[in-house]
Amino acid sequence: MHTYNVTKKALAIPALALLSSPLFSPPLQAAEAVNPPRPTVADIVKASKPAEWRALDPEHTLYMDLPAGRVVIELAPAFAPAHDANIRTLVREHYFDGLAMLRSHDNYVAQWGDPDEKNPRPFKSAKAKLTGEFTVPMSNDKHFTQLPDRDGYAAQVGHSNGFPSARDPKTGRAWLAHCYGMVGVGRDVDADSGNGSSLYAVTGHAPRHLDRNITVVGRVVSGMPLLSSLPRGTGALGFYEQAEQRMPIKSVRLAADVPEAERVKLEVMRTDSASFKAVAEAQRNRGGPWTKVPAGHVELCNVTIPVR
Amino acid sequence: MHTYNVTKKALAIPALALLSSPLFSPPLQAAEAVNPPRPTVADIVKASKPAEWRALDPEHTLYMDLPAGRVVIELAPAFAPAHDANIRTLVREHYFDGLAMLRSHDNYVAQWGDPDEKNPRPFKSAKAKLTGEFTVPMSNDKHFTQLPDRDGYAAQVGHSNGFPSARDPKTGRAWLAHCYGMVGVGRDVDADSGNGSSLYAVTGHAPRHLDRNITVVGRVVSGMPLLSSLPRGTGALGFYEQAEQRMPIKSVRLAADVPEAERVKLEVMRTDSASFKAVAEAQRNRGGPWTKVPAGHVELCNVTIPVR
Repeated sequence: MHTYNVTKKALAIPALALLSSPLFSPPLQAAEAVNPPRPTVADIVKASKPAEWRALDPEHTLYMDLPAGRVVIELAPAFAPAHDANIRTLVREHYFDGLAMLRSHDNYVAQWGDPDEKNPRPFKSAKAKLTGEFTVPMSNDKHFTQLPDRDGYAAQVGHSNGFPSARDPKTGRAWLAHCYGMVGVGRDVDADSGNGSSLYAVTGHAPRHLDRNITVVGRVVSGMPLLSSLPRGTGALGFYEQAEQRMPIKSVRLAADVPEAERVKLEVMRTDSASFKAVAEAQRNRGGPWTKVPAGHVELCNVTIPVR
Repeated sequence: MHTYNVTKKALAIPALALLSSPLFSPPLQAAEAVNPPRPTVADIVKASKPAEWRALDPEHTLYMDLPAGRVVIELAPAFAPAHDANIRTLVREHYFDGLAMLRSHDNYVAQWGDPDEKNPRPFKSAKAKLTGEFTVPMSNDKHFTQLPDRDGYAAQVGHSNGFPSARDPKTGRAWLAHCYGMVGVGRDVDADSGNGSSLYAVTGHAPRHLDRNITVVGRVVSGMPLLSSLPRGTGALGFYEQAEQRMPIKSVRLAADVPEAERVKLEVMRTDSASFKAVAEAQRNRGGPWTKVPAGHVELCNVTIPVR
């Protein structure tokens, strides 16, 4: 999924190589010294223990089926309990089935929902307005593991049970961070104008200025290319201008409502595990001869969260 | 190009709005206070003076024509003079014409060059090996304008004549930063194994760990969606596995070699101008009622460099 750390092919193709084996913490090298090898993310995944992984909770996992394949979204009830519940209600009422991708905004988001503004699809028992869950008390988040790396947007950043997150001890609030693949709730000007019927996934450089301004409800754990490679919309903000340009949504279902044999078997590395700490370090300071200057830093949204 | 700051449509569509008018420096607001309006990037562009813009230099501008349209790349001779020269030689010898997009790696890069490893297209007068231009003396860069915002990867970051850049006063070196849309030179393990015949553009979250490890030669100033929305390759590292999956390159030409009437008329906002400073501030602290918490920070790769 987000493990772009294979190296052999690129290294075997002269002048095509881009990625080094990503590795472990060397100090800065003198110009002529060869960077020592270190375990790669792939090495760490291979050596990890079964207890360092968790399955997705089928009650909080969405399957969005597009004509070209399936997008799997893990919801984050610890950070957006009311939106998680409302989205699950919408899904169970088949609200999304037959709706469409509405927008593909280059270096920003892909967004989906109801294309019909004049005759919007009615809600059944789902709520039309929800108070924005832009932040939650830090105490709601039982799994925060802080990165040692500094961040420009928040006092502390790290990972909470598989999601990139941030927190501010001064205010006692925590929130999910708008990294690539994170899923948020479109809203109008009012903070309570969102309800989960219009969702987006980040498809570009992390728009972290949206943090604390939007309810973030989850993360795409599989199928990002189906969203990120959509043709860009040519209207304002990347909206599609013609109905036929919109990729239809066949259905959105909860994994729990799909027969077990048809479920996608995915596991996410526990972000409070020793292996995950090693994964972050492997990206902070990549080893091996390709890398001439290990970065000595990893930005929150550059930390791969392994999925297998 | 990189101005995703239009707001009307999103604000007019209930529950679809994502982007606020991006604006000017308010302090953090109390929860209930309405964020005051501030000039948006569009406002600043509109009010800017002609002298705050510069045309692209046709001798250092590439037109890469794909079947679906044109990608315009501005080269950065101040940061990679030898690669700039070699690429211009390759282009003038029609090296790239008929080659292909080789790789589309989700949340990372699109890469192009010669797909034929067994019978590679020969060079004429271009050099096969160039010393990596990973960093240059700070004195080479006459236009650096520092951002006040802190950065995890470099001591100082800002913009140099239209390119995001970084520098380290301790070593006296400057380099271009791997933001979205930046163009770099693929290489093998050896620092001198690149030559500009294999190029890539960043299509995902900025892989800043590549900074100082790769020669960065320029920036896509128009046509990014043609690269970023390519279907992802299904081979290792996002390489295409079948020849027919590769988008062909019709031609790459220098703007100077294209009749003036056929050139793309583009201007880039001068990054040492007062208007550009205002653009960064407009993204650091967005104003208006949609934004509940202005970020108070803008990351280097989140600063739009206006092109018109």
